[in-house]
Amino acid sequence: MREPYTVKAEGLPDEVTIYEVGPRDGLQNERAVVPVEVKAELISRLAAAGLSVIEATSFVHPKWVPQLADAEKLLASMERVPGVRYPVLVPNERGLDRALAHGVTEIAIFGSATESFARRNLNRTVDESLAMFEPVVTRALAEGLRVRGYLSMCFGDPWEGPTAIERVVEIGGRLLELGCYELSLGDTIGVGTPGHVTALLRAFGTAGIGTSRLAVHFHDTYGQALANTLAALREGVTVVDSSAGGIGGCPYAMSATGNLATEDLVWMLHGLGVRTGVSLEPLVETSVWLASRLGRPPTSRVVQALAKEN
Amino acid sequence: MREPYTVKAEGLPDEVTIYEVGPRDGLQNERAVVPVEVKAELISRLAAAGLSVIEATSFVHPKWVPQLADAEKLLASMERVPGVRYPVLVPNERGLDRALAHGVTEIAIFGSATESFARRNLNRTVDESLAMFEPVVTRALAEGLRVRGYLSMCFGDPWEGPTAIERVVEIGGRLLELGCYELSLGDTIGVGTPGHVTALLRAFGTAGIGTSRLAVHFHDTYGQALANTLAALREGVTVVDSSAGGIGGCPYAMSATGNLATEDLVWMLHGLGVRTGVSLEPLVETSVWLASRLGRPPTSRVVQALAKEN
Repeated sequence: MREPYTVKAEGLPDEVTIYEVGPRDGLQNERAVVPVEVKAELISRLAAAGLSVIEATSFVHPKWVPQLADAEKLLASMERVPGVRYPVLVPNERGLDRALAHGVTEIAIFGSATESFARRNLNRTVDESLAMFEPVVTRALAEGLRVRGYLSMCFGDPWEGPTAIERVVEIGGRLLELGCYELSLGDTIGVGTPGHVTALLRAFGTAGIGTSRLAVHFHDTYGQALANTLAALREGVTVVDSSAGGIGGCPYAMSATGNLATEDLVWMLHGLGVRTGVSLEPLVETSVWLASRLGRPPTSRVVQALAKEN
Repeated sequence: MREPYTVKAEGLPDEVTIYEVGPRDGLQNERAVVPVEVKAELISRLAAAGLSVIEATSFVHPKWVPQLADAEKLLASMERVPGVRYPVLVPNERGLDRALAHGVTEIAIFGSATESFARRNLNRTVDESLAMFEPVVTRALAEGLRVRGYLSMCFGDPWEGPTAIERVVEIGGRLLELGCYELSLGDTIGVGTPGHVTALLRAFGTAGIGTSRLAVHFHDTYGQALANTLAALREGVTVVDSSAGGIGGCPYAMSATGNLATEDLVWMLHGLGVRTGVSLEPLVETSVWLASRLGRPPTSRVVQALAKEN
């Protein structure tokens, strides 16, 4: 299978951690329910391909995300490879109870950088959502868990237009102050461009929040995700979220959210000489296999190209 | 229709010329023959959307590119907007004769950076192909034409693997010495990554060939085209080749070549505050219209996203 040629660029990190969101953020956008065995196999395959962080599922109420209603079953049955982290999304204290009951050691919470999305996604104001997460984080930390914070709509949202950078820094800073070890900056609708990424990361730096506590989470809705990632790497970001095969973004469905595809990210990183620990071939094979289970082609350009090659 | 938000980045050009290759490089990869009226309308619509350079067609022998066998008819019937350039690809002296007979004022010739592709595409060695182009360029210049040089396989080819940077600089330099005003560096199979782009452009600089004489021509086969473009802009490149809607690259066909989509490029450039003179809305409408004529969806992420929005 073709691999990228490596030609190093200056000023980039030597190593990047890929935070794989396919089993959670990817699958939750799939309409047809995926059997729990397929989810468990996906997670095993991703770990075998060298991914060291795999967000496994979510304890959001099944009413909102029916696809992940089998979270308990999955956590009870899935393989756990030593050294690999399997965080789980948790929306509230009840979700935390369920996570603790199933041996989860790492959770993620999610806030919104805009009031419109907070109201729609969390049915709360931004302040109310932070107040809701506070006891979750406090208890999680007391139980010895690591907590990641997601922040959605960091570049713009469909109702308010561009998100003010100061507002993102303020709300993001409050999520970190709650006790999150890392903040993942989400371009949920994929509108951001590289100069915006640079400006946002530098504004965090000015506020005393360095890139060692920041991850980026780009969506490829407008094809900008890799260029944005390159801009983030130049600012020193070393954790990048992506989804195997690009699942979560069907180009021909209204629900398209367009996660950056892990394979496209790996191609660029390995081409740049940035280590990831991931092997492209088993990863591509995983996405081809998953596409056959989902009944539609992967959106990843690398998977499309390499699957044809074979 | 949604437009990108502008957040400027440092160290980028204020303005970029988009060299639109859809009607030639894009359509030549379409199997079903597109009527000449559709081609003429495409060119008119692209000019109306603000594109100032539109490669119209090719005088390569119809045996090799049947899609463009109507070059004469198209040149006789298409609208020419004052101030817009309409270059035509010309492979040899006979092609030049035909171009001159139809009032063409700008041509493009094409070389290969690798022997394997020169043999397959031109049935000649690299040296022989340069010798073939020499009288074409000399006569074209004597007739007052501008001549552009394309160089294919500048990053790698399917037979030889990575292309040696020194070799690209050497052959590219020879194309410029023939009299080309500009050299377009093609990543024909789309394997390049941003560090490779930077290294190649800097090697040209070291050889005394500045970015004012260089254009970039990326294919999105592995999803790298926009990140590579960003790297090229940072080196000072101000001419970027792309194809409206991404035509020339069908993701589900073996023939996929995957031109960078003009819309995805425009989204990034306008987001970065780089002027292009192009209006996104009529461009997207053109690609949606063309897709309906070609009978398949556009590969451009921006077109997919905005077409759904409307």
